[in-house]
Amino acid sequence: MHIACFLFDGITALDIVGPFEVLQRLPGASVRFVARSAGVVRTDAVSTDDGPQGAGNLGLVADAGFDDVARADLLLVPGGFGTRALEHDGPTLAWIRAVDRTTRWTASVCTGSMLLAAAGLLAGKEATTHWASLERLATYGAVPVSRRVVETGKYVTAAGVSSGIDMALTLAARIAGDDLARTVQLQIEYDPQPPFDAGSVGKAPAAIVSKLRRRYAGT
Amino acid sequence: MHIACFLFDGITALDIVGPFEVLQRLPGASVRFVARSAGVVRTDAVSTDDGPQGAGNLGLVADAGFDDVARADLLLVPGGFGTRALEHDGPTLAWIRAVDRTTRWTASVCTGSMLLAAAGLLAGKEATTHWASLERLATYGAVPVSRRVVETGKYVTAAGVSSGIDMALTLAARIAGDDLARTVQLQIEYDPQPPFDAGSVGKAPAAIVSKLRRRYAGT
Repeated sequence: MHIACFLFDGITALDIVGPFEVLQRLPGASVRFVARSAGVVRTDAVSTDDGPQGAGNLGLVADAGFDDVARADLLLVPGGFGTRALEHDGPTLAWIRAVDRTTRWTASVCTGSMLLAAAGLLAGKEATTHWASLERLATYGAVPVSRRVVETGKYVTAAGVSSGIDMALTLAARIAGDDLARTVQLQIEYDPQPPFDAGSVGKAPAAIVSKLRRRYAGT
Repeated sequence: MHIACFLFDGITALDIVGPFEVLQRLPGASVRFVARSAGVVRTDAVSTDDGPQGAGNLGLVADAGFDDVARADLLLVPGGFGTRALEHDGPTLAWIRAVDRTTRWTASVCTGSMLLAAAGLLAGKEATTHWASLERLATYGAVPVSRRVVETGKYVTAAGVSSGIDMALTLAARIAGDDLARTVQLQIEYDPQPPFDAGSVGKAPAAIVSKLRRRYAGT
């Protein structure tokens, strides 16, 4: 089970690390982190507020470049503010298309699905992404669905950031069975107990949704 | 708000990236990743099963070494299999103790609390850690509590791996208010919908708990 995780500057760290933490535990899993060129990428950094911008990002190491990885059983494409530039980046879209031709599963988290869509892989297919970008999926011919995890044949797309954990457990069950997925869930003690119930547009206070919509529109 | 995130070889990636994804979004947050020496650390890799070991880990960049960071408002100590060696590592425990003397908050995820305890910071205090290590906390004089997030004054400890997200949202609320925490929750779309309900010892099938206990005992 060869898993290729795409890395790029402006990635959201949790988008890739959530699924990695689940999928690396599958029996026989072999994970490679791949960027356009081998080396360090930097995560995005976005504060929530109208106060000073948060500072500090995390360096993640891509051990391989596009030229080193031509195929994978599972391709995982995370999101982040960096995807906006990559939607129009020929080499990135070409690599995604090429690897996708070899996969059993092609999966995305957050705005990673914008790259799958821009690569032409989601035309006419239901897919999801971060709530603030959902309508834009239609730009590339995908059918936006507001759901945490959307499966359309071999394409599995997840909503924003943390939803990659739920997506990866779903995939783990498809790949290795329900009990293996439950085993991983217990290993990572994924028994979520958020102190608030504001994790979706339908649940968060309207004022918070509006503030974030304005903020994202301005970036 | 200076946040110091401790990195080391054998770290569990999600332990640090979950809280980072929350806390970097606090207004004015400034995050530094600190290892014994600046450079790349490698995450741990543990498959669930009796099949072949999963392969492939992730390189994380520590931009600073112990000598570069003497203080922080918030110290975050993640876990992973690498903590076992560090429980007896003088320089690591000395650095944790020194930074802790300057913090408003000292927090851990998973077996990160074993390091806080080994450093003598949790003596007589309630604390938690990954379910499979809970009893060992008492070795260092802490009072083990089976709860997802335990607050004891400025010390905030979380249970295994994914619980760091819940812990960080709790901390975000303490630091910047409930609405800011809700805003971050919506940004990272943390509306968990795991496909199974096996994320704690009390909920997972007994056979899975037993299998993992045996596996951890053998590592």
